[in-house]
Amino acid sequence: MTTTSELKGQRIIISGGGIGGASGALALALRGAEVTLYEQHAEFKEVGAGLQIGPHGVKMLRQWGLADEAISAGYLPKHMQFRDAVTAEQILSMDFGEEFREHYGEPYLVIHRSDLLNLLVDAARKAGARLVNSVKVIDGRDEGDHVSVDIQDCASQEVSTVTADVLVGFDGTHSVLRKKLVDDDPVPSAYVAYRGTSSLPDDPEMAGLESVVGYIGPRCHFIQYPLRGGELLNQVAVFQSPRYLESLMKGQEAPDDWGNNDEFRDAFGHTSEKIQGRLSHMWLDKWWQMADRDPLTDWVVSDRIIVMGDAAHPPLQYIASGAIMAMEDAETLAQYAADNARSGSVHWGTVLREVSDERVPRCTRIQLTSRLWGELWHVDGIARHVRNETFRMAQRHGWFHYADWLWNYDPARREYLTDPSKGQLPAALRDWEYNLTTIARQADKLTV
Amino acid sequence: MTTTSELKGQRIIISGGGIGGASGALALALRGAEVTLYEQHAEFKEVGAGLQIGPHGVKMLRQWGLADEAISAGYLPKHMQFRDAVTAEQILSMDFGEEFREHYGEPYLVIHRSDLLNLLVDAARKAGARLVNSVKVIDGRDEGDHVSVDIQDCASQEVSTVTADVLVGFDGTHSVLRKKLVDDDPVPSAYVAYRGTSSLPDDPEMAGLESVVGYIGPRCHFIQYPLRGGELLNQVAVFQSPRYLESLMKGQEAPDDWGNNDEFRDAFGHTSEKIQGRLSHMWLDKWWQMADRDPLTDWVVSDRIIVMGDAAHPPLQYIASGAIMAMEDAETLAQYAADNARSGSVHWGTVLREVSDERVPRCTRIQLTSRLWGELWHVDGIARHVRNETFRMAQRHGWFHYADWLWNYDPARREYLTDPSKGQLPAALRDWEYNLTTIARQADKLTV
Repeated sequence: MTTTSELKGQRIIISGGGIGGASGALALALRGAEVTLYEQHAEFKEVGAGLQIGPHGVKMLRQWGLADEAISAGYLPKHMQFRDAVTAEQILSMDFGEEFREHYGEPYLVIHRSDLLNLLVDAARKAGARLVNSVKVIDGRDEGDHVSVDIQDCASQEVSTVTADVLVGFDGTHSVLRKKLVDDDPVPSAYVAYRGTSSLPDDPEMAGLESVVGYIGPRCHFIQYPLRGGELLNQVAVFQSPRYLESLMKGQEAPDDWGNNDEFRDAFGHTSEKIQGRLSHMWLDKWWQMADRDPLTDWVVSDRIIVMGDAAHPPLQYIASGAIMAMEDAETLAQYAADNARSGSVHWGTVLREVSDERVPRCTRIQLTSRLWGELWHVDGIARHVRNETFRMAQRHGWFHYADWLWNYDPARREYLTDPSKGQLPAALRDWEYNLTTIARQADKLTV
Repeated sequence: MTTTSELKGQRIIISGGGIGGASGALALALRGAEVTLYEQHAEFKEVGAGLQIGPHGVKMLRQWGLADEAISAGYLPKHMQFRDAVTAEQILSMDFGEEFREHYGEPYLVIHRSDLLNLLVDAARKAGARLVNSVKVIDGRDEGDHVSVDIQDCASQEVSTVTADVLVGFDGTHSVLRKKLVDDDPVPSAYVAYRGTSSLPDDPEMAGLESVVGYIGPRCHFIQYPLRGGELLNQVAVFQSPRYLESLMKGQEAPDDWGNNDEFRDAFGHTSEKIQGRLSHMWLDKWWQMADRDPLTDWVVSDRIIVMGDAAHPPLQYIASGAIMAMEDAETLAQYAADNARSGSVHWGTVLREVSDERVPRCTRIQLTSRLWGELWHVDGIARHVRNETFRMAQRHGWFHYADWLWNYDPARREYLTDPSKGQLPAALRDWEYNLTTIARQADKLTV
């Protein structure tokens, strides 16, 4: 980890201490900036368990000198195996071996969310960033030559104002700062996730698990992979909530507890016993109602305020790029600011504009592809069979060309800045419409 | 066309003078049998227009010495082009050139139904078969050493009884003789076809059409190809009837005129202008409500009575094999009977058993695949996009292996007799369920 000094004297406030905020603090501190990060919770922690870090994410960690440490703390799966959830047939195994690493420059990593966050927080501190817990950023104002930021002490509720050159909103999917750009709501996906971790060595049924295994099936899927060098088994069971869907179709408010344990118990009856036999390992006291938001066309609030990470582009999880987008955002901001600083001073308006113009198209494509990929996993009937055949053909004839846009990325190339059309879905997919949108529109027609 | 004499002295009655019956009369007469065919209509005629004859069908025509004549009367398309009906993008072009002909031994032919029927009728007569119009077979009884057949004169309504060694029921989808095996109903598909032929040379928009072009799209498709050496343009417009579907979902009787002109006018609004601009060429006074029947497990009524062709296995039209199955049936019966006769006499019980055991698995697979293929054409949303991608991949990497079972067939090989499991769908498709069945079952649940 080498620190440079391009951003020396630049004062940056980051709102939010998740993976995005910590990455931002680290990346900017590594360029010499004076970073203060405010996190409303008393400690830095992540909800959930396993996190898949594709080579695009490992590249960011490498940039920050953390790749080897992250790999030690995590696990390098040998393959990503897709299986049909009904028959358990393997339909596509993506080999993460030598050819993959050569092609994408980095391995495919899985790691516990907390382990990754701890690494980033420690590294950010080591790089000189000031990370402050129990303080929440509640507003920010561009004052022309600086930014004023209102912060609230979460214990005393006392509000005070601090100043900086730039305010970066990594304040998550329920972001305060995003509201300065748009007053939108999350888009629930009708899918809910149950998670669970357990001891892998104590689980003879799972002996030999060395890959990310994804059973994909009608209206559900089930993911398994090792964590922490194989000590921990991570499992995720995701299904479409019949109660959410029914509400949507009737144009009614969904019940708060959609996806509850009753629904969970009925959700996998049509799947292989290889899945059903594993569901007892899932945590029942918490479930995740999965939602994203529609893509933004601009993340720049002002010349000195920008939103990033989940605040800017919360995705569905299907292409495992939510945390990685935030890491890419962080590195892009630090890199472009450092580049800009080489002219002598930093013109933040220019930097934020470039960052947004590079990142918005890429993250838009990732958000849309995540929706599409999820639909593809969950189809039924003849669609399921043709999906399986496509996966088999990709296995036989190569699948790199489907993944290159996602996994072969380097913000230094400024490829989306140069050609924003790269942020669109491939031409053949352009008239695809998110099925949740279709259902909502049809429901609207039915109830009007 | 060479005639042999293995079946000399064998008296065979065929019920029905469509393509199947005429093929049967021809194939059996070519082996020296004394064939009498009864057709209830006053003339031999086919409804509809174009007929696609894959290499499996041309092989039968070649066997009977009719291939060259049929090719002269028809048209040899250069390709089968599949296009997405929404975007008009070509997603798969199957080349019917030299490699295809070498692989399958015969070309891919399209021909006017009437032209093919006329060829078969003339050839059957030339081969010595007696073809009788305006007489309907109304019943048949196995009398041990012969079969008694009740026939009715369609003008006088007079019924008389004739005898023969064997009765073959090629009496079509509303077969009288099938009722001796099963009392089933047709299974409507919810799809309706409009057809039309017009002058191709007088149609500048269609100049250069040399292929079978199939636009496949959500809930509809549209087919175009030349006939009669390029003099005639054949077009077929097929769509899902909203009124039929609504009735099905509500568990109600469908209106008799489902698929009527009102529905036709609304059915292609979501498709490319390349289709919409062609619909004025369709005949409006007649439409075809498309249906098939569930496969039978046995076609043998008795040692001397069998059903064949549409009487045994009416399919949906999607893999263009209805008429060809009937032709294969005819040749299989004649061939196996001639083989059996080489021992000295003909044991019809053995022959009919072998024929049924060879043909039932093959035709079952064709019937099921036709349903499946139709579903694949008509999918919407993400399923449509993945279908398109599968087609593109098949274009890039080869598609012969998908078609070999269908197009590379010779009854002489007795491959289904030897291994009846060849009649099953590939293992990966075995849990596929016809969506009409699914909808009907769900409707049943809803209305009970």
